[in-house]
Amino acid sequence: MPGPSDLENKLILTVNCGSSSIKFKLYTAESLRVIFSGSASNVEQKGLKPTIKYVVHHNEHGHEEEEKFQEQEDEKMLYEAVFERIITLLEEKQLQHFAGQEHERPRDLIRLITHRVVHGGSQMEPMVLWPGHEEGIDLLDKLAEFAPLHNHRSIVVVKACLEHLPASHQVLCYDTLFHQTLAPKIYTYPISAPEEAPPVPLRRYGMHGLSYAAILRLVSNFLGKEKEETNLIVAHLGSGASMCLIRSGKSEDTTMGLTPLEGLPGGTRTGSVDPVLIYHHTPSSIEVVNYKGTDITKAELVLNTQGGFQALAGTSDFGQIISHLPQDFDPFSTDISADQKWELTYALFLDRLLNFLGSYLNKLRGHPTLPSHLDALVFSGGIGEHAVRLRADVARYLGWLGCELDVKANETDSEDVVIKISTPSSKIVLLICKTDEEQQCALMAKPYLF
Amino acid sequence: MPGPSDLENKLILTVNCGSSSIKFKLYTAESLRVIFSGSASNVEQKGLKPTIKYVVHHNEHGHEEEEKFQEQEDEKMLYEAVFERIITLLEEKQLQHFAGQEHERPRDLIRLITHRVVHGGSQMEPMVLWPGHEEGIDLLDKLAEFAPLHNHRSIVVVKACLEHLPASHQVLCYDTLFHQTLAPKIYTYPISAPEEAPPVPLRRYGMHGLSYAAILRLVSNFLGKEKEETNLIVAHLGSGASMCLIRSGKSEDTTMGLTPLEGLPGGTRTGSVDPVLIYHHTPSSIEVVNYKGTDITKAELVLNTQGGFQALAGTSDFGQIISHLPQDFDPFSTDISADQKWELTYALFLDRLLNFLGSYLNKLRGHPTLPSHLDALVFSGGIGEHAVRLRADVARYLGWLGCELDVKANETDSEDVVIKISTPSSKIVLLICKTDEEQQCALMAKPYLF
Repeated sequence: MPGPSDLENKLILTVNCGSSSIKFKLYTAESLRVIFSGSASNVEQKGLKPTIKYVVHHNEHGHEEEEKFQEQEDEKMLYEAVFERIITLLEEKQLQHFAGQEHERPRDLIRLITHRVVHGGSQMEPMVLWPGHEEGIDLLDKLAEFAPLHNHRSIVVVKACLEHLPASHQVLCYDTLFHQTLAPKIYTYPISAPEEAPPVPLRRYGMHGLSYAAILRLVSNFLGKEKEETNLIVAHLGSGASMCLIRSGKSEDTTMGLTPLEGLPGGTRTGSVDPVLIYHHTPSSIEVVNYKGTDITKAELVLNTQGGFQALAGTSDFGQIISHLPQDFDPFSTDISADQKWELTYALFLDRLLNFLGSYLNKLRGHPTLPSHLDALVFSGGIGEHAVRLRADVARYLGWLGCELDVKANETDSEDVVIKISTPSSKIVLLICKTDEEQQCALMAKPYLF
Repeated sequence: MPGPSDLENKLILTVNCGSSSIKFKLYTAESLRVIFSGSASNVEQKGLKPTIKYVVHHNEHGHEEEEKFQEQEDEKMLYEAVFERIITLLEEKQLQHFAGQEHERPRDLIRLITHRVVHGGSQMEPMVLWPGHEEGIDLLDKLAEFAPLHNHRSIVVVKACLEHLPASHQVLCYDTLFHQTLAPKIYTYPISAPEEAPPVPLRRYGMHGLSYAAILRLVSNFLGKEKEETNLIVAHLGSGASMCLIRSGKSEDTTMGLTPLEGLPGGTRTGSVDPVLIYHHTPSSIEVVNYKGTDITKAELVLNTQGGFQALAGTSDFGQIISHLPQDFDPFSTDISADQKWELTYALFLDRLLNFLGSYLNKLRGHPTLPSHLDALVFSGGIGEHAVRLRADVARYLGWLGCELDVKANETDSEDVVIKISTPSSKIVLLICKTDEEQQCALMAKPYLF
C-alpha cells in the first residue's frame, strides 16, 4: 500500500468538456490540492481560434501562490489537439518541477483522469478504462444519442487519453449517477414500449448530479448534519438549469429527464414544452443535421439551441437580462406584455422556477411518513450564485411559509463556499453554495487510485 | 323583443363530439330545462355499430319524468349520418309534441346549436355561423391541426347543421376560451419563431375551459361568493386530465398547452415528457398516419393514444386500476417497483397531480400583492368525482397545510352538484363538483338567441 507521501506524488486530472470548451484541474491525489487549472474556449469552432487560460498554483511552505497565463492558438483546433496542448502546458509549467526521477515523462505522474460525462444511462457507479480495457467506450458512444452536444466531446478526449496518456486510468463520472435513487414512479414515462430497443431504457435520468452531490456534501457539512439526514431543495441555475429535491441525502426528484432538455428553460434550451410543439414549429424535425461535428435531429438542435433566454431576449446571458430590468419592475405582475422582452424573460424563468419549487416543497413537506423538514433551499450555478434579484424575488414569494431574506447577506461578495442569506428567524433557510463539480469528480475517482 | 313565453318555444341544442361519440342535450331557451338528452357511441368505428341512448324528459305540471330509449344501428355509420339520426329521433319523440303550429318542420324550433370545440386558438368569444355566414369554418379547419382527434368531428357536424338545419345558428364554444386570461409569461413557450407562420401563434392555450367555467359558476354559487372574488384550484380528472389555477375568477395557469397533450397523463395520453423522448421512441415520428379518418403525425398518434394509464396498466380505465390496488397499499412508498403495474400507475398519476397541486398552491398563496387565499380545492371529471381513494390520498398529503378530510363525506353517493368533503376545521376546503359542460355551452349561447 502506498503511504501518504507516495500519494502526494500521484496526481488526478479532472476534465470537463462542454460544447466548445475544455475545463481542467490537476489535483494532488492525497490532499486534493489544486496545482494547475484552467479552461480552453472556442474549441473546434469554425473561424475561431481557441484560447487557453491557465493558472499554475504553487504552495511554498503552506503559502499559496498563483501564476496566470493565457495563450491563443493560431488556427481552429480539434478537441484532441487542444487537449494535447493542455497536457504539454501542464508538463512544461508544472509537472517537470513536480515529478520524481523515476518517471520517463512528467505526464505519467497523472494516475487518474476523471471525465465529467453528462449521460451515463443506467450506470450505478463511475466506469474505469485503461489501455486494453476499453469496452466501456461503446456504451458511451451509444449514450451520446441522449446528450449529443456533450457526450461526444468526452468520447473524443477519453480516446485521446487512452492513446497519449497510457499510464493513466480514465474514470468516467456521470451526471446521472446521483439520480439513480429516483423511484420508478418518478422516472417512468407513461408511454408504450418503443418499437426498437433503445441503447438504455427510455426513462428520466436527471443531470447535474455531480453538482448536486457536491452541494449535498458542502451544505450538510455547513449545517453540521449527516448527509443521510439532510433534506434540501437545490436550484442549480446556469445556462443549463435544473432543480433537485434531496430527501435524506438522496435525489428524490429532479427536473431534467431522459436528456438535459426537460424541465426549466436555460440559456438556449426550451425546457419542458408541449411534446408536439416541435412538430408544428419545425415540420422537418426528424431531418438529421450536423451541429459542431455531431449528427443530431433538427428537433434536438432547435429545442436545445434555439430556445430559452436566447429565443426570448436575444441573449443567453441572464446577467444581461437582469441588467436591463427597470428599477421598479414587478415580476409578479400579470401585465407584462409579450414585447417587453427583458421583463418577460425574467418573469417567465422565475415563474417556471417557482412552479418546480412549489412542487418540491409540497412533495417534501407533505409526505406522511418520511422526514419532511426542509434544511435549506440552495441556490447554485452561475445564475444562482450571482442573481441577487432572483434570489430576493424567490424569497419574497416564499413569505407565505415564513421565509425571510437577509437583504444585506443576499448582496454578498463573500468567497465562502456556502453563504447563508436568510434571517435567523426565517422559517426557511436560504443558502448560496459555490458548487465544485471538478472536486467532486476527483473525490469520486480517488478510490480507483492504483 | 320576445317575451318569456316566446323563448320557451325556442330551443338550444348542445352537441359534444368526442373521438367516437356524440353527446347531445336539448334545452328550452328561457329556463334551460332539458327536454331531450343522450349520447351515441361507436361512431365511425370500423366493424362497430353505433348505439344511440337517449332520454325524453317530460315536465307535467312541475313534475319531472324521464323515458329512456336505446337503439342500435345496423352498420358502421359516419358522424353526419348518426347526427341526422339523432335529429330525427328528437323530432319524432319530442319536438312534434312541443312545436307550435307556425313551424314547417319540428327541427326548426332549434334556434341555436352549440358545439363544444376543443381548440379555438386565439378566439376571445364564441363564434356564430349560419348559412351564408360560414367563413369561420376555415379557422376551425386550420385549428384541427392542434386537436386532431376532436376538432375534426366538430367540423363535420357543424357542416351538417349548416346544411340540414338552416333555420338554426351554430354557436362554437371553445374549451380554450376560459384561458384567454393567461398572462404572456404563462402562455409563452421559450422557442424561436417558427420557419413558416402557423395558423395561430404557437403558445399555450389550455383546454377543458367549458368545464372550468361551469365549476367556477357552480362552486362560487355554493360558497356564496362572487365569481370575481373566488380563488380555486380545480382538478378536472377524466380520461383527459388537467388542472387549473383560478384567481379572482380568472384562469391564471393550467396544465394543458398548445394541445391537450401537455401536463398530466391521462387514459391514453402521456402528458408532459422530455420533448425529444418521441424521437428516440418512434424514429419515424413525422410520418403521417390516418387515425379514425384524420391525418396526423405518428408522434401525435403515439403520444395521444399509446401513453398514460393504457401504456402503464393495459387499461385506460382508472376505476379498474384502483380496484386492483391491495388493501394496505401505500402510494407514497418509494418501493413500488416497475412491474407492479396497478400500484405504479396509481402512484405515478398521484405524483404528477401533487406536483401541479404544489405549484399552484405556491403560486396562489405566495403572490405578494394579489388575493392569495384558497377558497377550495375542487375535484371534478369522472376520476375526480368517483375516485374516493385518490381524493383521500391528496387530502392526506395536504395535511402539512392543515387539510382534513371528512372521511364519511368523501364516500358520498350524493347527487348534489357540489359536495363538501373536508371537515369544518380543515384549513383547506375540499369539494367535489359535478361539472356540466353542456349547460355551460347553453348558457354561453343564450346571448345569441334571435
